[in-house]
Amino acid sequence: MNILERLAALRALMKENGLSAYVVPGNDPHASEYMASHWCEMQWLSGFNGEAGTMVVTMDKALLWTDSRYYLQAGIELKDSTIELMRESDVDCPRITEWLCEQFTVHNSQCTIGVNPEMFSVNDFKAWKEDLAKAGIEIQSIDLIKPIWVEGRPAIPQDKLYPYSADFAGETVESKLTRMREIVNRKSSNRQWALIISALDEIAWLLNIRGNDVEYNPVVISYVVLEADKCTLFVDANKVDTVAQNYLDFNNIDVQSYEAVFAYINGLKGTVLYDGARVNEALFEAIPADCKKINTKSPILIDKAKKNAVELEGERIAMRQDAVALTRFFKWLEEEAFADGKTQTEWDLMEKLHEFRAMGENFVEESFGTIAGYQGNGAIVHYAATKDNCAIVKPEGMLLLDSGGQYLDGTTDITRTVWLGGRIPQQAKLDYTYVLKGHIALARARFPRGTRGNQLDALAKQYMWEAGITYGHGTGHGVGHFLGCHEGPQNVRTDNNPTALEIGHIVSDEPGIYRTDKWGIRTENLITVIPAKQTKETTTEDEWLAFETLTLCFYDTSLIEMSLMTEDEIDWLNAYHVRVYKEVSPLLNDEEKSYLAYKCAAIEL
Amino acid sequence: MNILERLAALRALMKENGLSAYVVPGNDPHASEYMASHWCEMQWLSGFNGEAGTMVVTMDKALLWTDSRYYLQAGIELKDSTIELMRESDVDCPRITEWLCEQFTVHNSQCTIGVNPEMFSVNDFKAWKEDLAKAGIEIQSIDLIKPIWVEGRPAIPQDKLYPYSADFAGETVESKLTRMREIVNRKSSNRQWALIISALDEIAWLLNIRGNDVEYNPVVISYVVLEADKCTLFVDANKVDTVAQNYLDFNNIDVQSYEAVFAYINGLKGTVLYDGARVNEALFEAIPADCKKINTKSPILIDKAKKNAVELEGERIAMRQDAVALTRFFKWLEEEAFADGKTQTEWDLMEKLHEFRAMGENFVEESFGTIAGYQGNGAIVHYAATKDNCAIVKPEGMLLLDSGGQYLDGTTDITRTVWLGGRIPQQAKLDYTYVLKGHIALARARFPRGTRGNQLDALAKQYMWEAGITYGHGTGHGVGHFLGCHEGPQNVRTDNNPTALEIGHIVSDEPGIYRTDKWGIRTENLITVIPAKQTKETTTEDEWLAFETLTLCFYDTSLIEMSLMTEDEIDWLNAYHVRVYKEVSPLLNDEEKSYLAYKCAAIEL
Repeated sequence: MNILERLAALRALMKENGLSAYVVPGNDPHASEYMASHWCEMQWLSGFNGEAGTMVVTMDKALLWTDSRYYLQAGIELKDSTIELMRESDVDCPRITEWLCEQFTVHNSQCTIGVNPEMFSVNDFKAWKEDLAKAGIEIQSIDLIKPIWVEGRPAIPQDKLYPYSADFAGETVESKLTRMREIVNRKSSNRQWALIISALDEIAWLLNIRGNDVEYNPVVISYVVLEADKCTLFVDANKVDTVAQNYLDFNNIDVQSYEAVFAYINGLKGTVLYDGARVNEALFEAIPADCKKINTKSPILIDKAKKNAVELEGERIAMRQDAVALTRFFKWLEEEAFADGKTQTEWDLMEKLHEFRAMGENFVEESFGTIAGYQGNGAIVHYAATKDNCAIVKPEGMLLLDSGGQYLDGTTDITRTVWLGGRIPQQAKLDYTYVLKGHIALARARFPRGTRGNQLDALAKQYMWEAGITYGHGTGHGVGHFLGCHEGPQNVRTDNNPTALEIGHIVSDEPGIYRTDKWGIRTENLITVIPAKQTKETTTEDEWLAFETLTLCFYDTSLIEMSLMTEDEIDWLNAYHVRVYKEVSPLLNDEEKSYLAYKCAAIEL
Repeated sequence: MNILERLAALRALMKENGLSAYVVPGNDPHASEYMASHWCEMQWLSGFNGEAGTMVVTMDKALLWTDSRYYLQAGIELKDSTIELMRESDVDCPRITEWLCEQFTVHNSQCTIGVNPEMFSVNDFKAWKEDLAKAGIEIQSIDLIKPIWVEGRPAIPQDKLYPYSADFAGETVESKLTRMREIVNRKSSNRQWALIISALDEIAWLLNIRGNDVEYNPVVISYVVLEADKCTLFVDANKVDTVAQNYLDFNNIDVQSYEAVFAYINGLKGTVLYDGARVNEALFEAIPADCKKINTKSPILIDKAKKNAVELEGERIAMRQDAVALTRFFKWLEEEAFADGKTQTEWDLMEKLHEFRAMGENFVEESFGTIAGYQGNGAIVHYAATKDNCAIVKPEGMLLLDSGGQYLDGTTDITRTVWLGGRIPQQAKLDYTYVLKGHIALARARFPRGTRGNQLDALAKQYMWEAGITYGHGTGHGVGHFLGCHEGPQNVRTDNNPTALEIGHIVSDEPGIYRTDKWGIRTENLITVIPAKQTKETTTEDEWLAFETLTLCFYDTSLIEMSLMTEDEIDWLNAYHVRVYKEVSPLLNDEEKSYLAYKCAAIEL
């Protein structure tokens, strides 16, 4: 079927079911950031291959909402599809529910819109329902894609799940289950309760299992229902080999098939707890009417974010592996990549970096798609070079490199921006230095317990703000431990987020400056929240927190405008470089050691 | 009646009405910060004279919840009253509704708690109702204080209201009413609507009237109901003299008695809008059941906060008057107060400062109770010296002075901390300088439009945080124009507040450090949000904002630890002192000019 045939098939089903519109969001049933291709319904229906978007199909119109990252790509891919592009980052673009209300209030006083409830979180579904009710529109749970996307639909991934040793996780399954049960006992007055868990990273963390079902995320497609006296994992039987089965048996985890979760939930009694931001509407609709329902922030999400000592030690090990790969990569870039007039493409650099990372002990895969943005491409915040469509890199100008690895020991995420050669424009030095000063200010921050990330965001921006420069992305995202490279609930962003930073949280520290068609500059380390030492000046009994920088890679000091740097900042940078050399050099050969020593040389005012 | 008799009378009425408990919050019907004594029901019932607290009376218990500012005072004043002090700032202190639920869930499955709905905002009442419903407790609107507080109850203030010229207000009533009606028209789909306004500063601003009903706030006790075709002011007839009546007639403002508001609201039709955070529950309950009710942030609150050019020019005039008073005060303090071995009390200083302020053109009254905190008293954040209970001040040590004036031109609020003599401890210099650096960082901040105050809060704290010091109060509160010294919706605090800073907002900039029994240091100016100049470096199309400092008074430079100051900070401070001298000296005599010149002398590293 081509796109027009797919739309026609969908409309036939809509007509049959009395639906005025059908909505296909770019989600999967697990609120995943990276989705298995089985669930790429929006992409299949539209022909648009971007990662974010929502399709709306009416009897006479088809529209795709997506954000400014994808305007160009969508414009090309939607050509001749009859699908209209809705530019949702534009101020005057209506929200989808607004558009639906406007569309159907006028023509039809009684109309119904279909959606697959597996693709909506409980909270989103509720918000849509309320928005649409204002115009008298009803919303119906129905899956119209399954009947028409038969041929060529990829299966749900069938990779094996494997136990993740407590030697890496730092806590046994038994201990985690006991703790979670205590938390839920405090939330539920009824002793008969069940907690529905559908986020894949929460399941992986809770049961100490990992898998290969999703790119960049070592997770297993599954659901869990935790109860006071049992724990049931819903997962396809062929993902569970004997070793895994023994492991699950040993930990008293029952296994049922992936699809059985709905019937199981439908048989629950007492109180059912779920995180409405992460659990999908289909699971919610399966809860029996006479159960008490509690929508609560996932206790697993909250606990998972606070890394234990073993997880943090693993992160430090992974960081050293990552640093070796980056040191070798930058040495190669400086000494070999352009030797004898050779050039490279952005894709070549991505492959080379992968090659070095893959040599690392316990390396599993990248933690996200590497961004290698040369010159103006660095200014495109979510730039993704492909083999067939990428820039040629010469030994001149600016290169932004944002990459990370999944190691059994932990997850890394690092950005360095380096100057490849030629005269450095003064503006480039200023930009690099504003970014670096902000990056250091956040890394050096001390703050009282209870402080939220959004309170610290301006520390990373204050110097560039003084020059009238800012950036639109977050300053810091949470990072998982051999799990998602982006996780909550903590972050460092402008948005109001009630989550306070707590000991063991990991966040990135990545301010940036982007000049269209010229360059993008971003500097990123991962940092973790630690107790700060009391000083003798302390006036209050507040507990004080600070950050430990986890990432171990030198900065390009040739780009620093020294006149903007304070002594404190220079001291911090020099101490960091001393530490980088001390921790990374033992893993390098002599030639690499000399290179690292040269990159870590102290700078002076 | 003594306290025990009052409690007994209340309990008799509770019994008669079948109530298990009665709650008396320390509020008035207008959500005022400063209350007329007529409404001090909590104080009357308890004998506790602090400004914040809530009384809960059951058949066998009486409890007063108040915060840590008042623990000492309440402990003394509640002695022999049978009233138990509940320390609500303590972590383990139950919230009132929690306590009620626990108290009555066990003993009584069906119980009702009485409250006067005039003393609860709609939102608070709703939250209480929901909290109590969890334990099956009902809440009943009933006023049991009125029948028992007859003898000696102060009347509602009867001062005259007076028109406030558009020459000061910068906008006519007609223009304000038209604008507000346009805003409400956009919110209400029904053309028949009414907006209930009960906050006294909103009424004063909207109708360009002022009065003397409340200490420190030039407002008139009244309600307003604004409709598409009329505007009704509910105010006691004897507050309206011929001039005021003519003014109100001219502006087509109907007048009805203060009490008539309930019957009037009860006769409304169509859509009724109210700000549930500010409108009291009694007004809400008067809305007919068949009206559509919209709980919306007050459009007057939002608009009032954005000062127009005339208001801002008025603020600048008031600031110069204030600066003259402060210059004269500090000159007197330095040259005369302690001459020939004289001492002063904190009260003397407050009176002297008032004397100088009262000489100012268009001065009306203080904008809040002056805080003169000598040595350790400066560390008590809400310290209030009284004539009979205050410290003796000698020409040594630290004095914190926080004060402000209401001028017809505008409202001021300034804190300076000065060293009166003797050797300055190094810690005092460090503390003063951390505070000053934070104060300057906020005043100098540039930020993109859309930035909220809570994003900037850490700028004022970062230097003291580095030393492990912080403070519990807000960094900045909104300030009215010849109205409340504390107003919303904007502020600079740690709390999440969705309000972005906008051009014309005024906030205070007042970081502080408090060392119990030693000293308190706070430095406060008022600053207003202005457009910032674009720089040639700007990368985005964001609009940039900055602050203009309004307050015009020198800092005590003898307390600065110069080694902590950056060149930028010193430049800022010197430029500020140049400006202070330039703007204030023309209003001074020669002797005062020399004194000011000496205090404004440039400092150097």
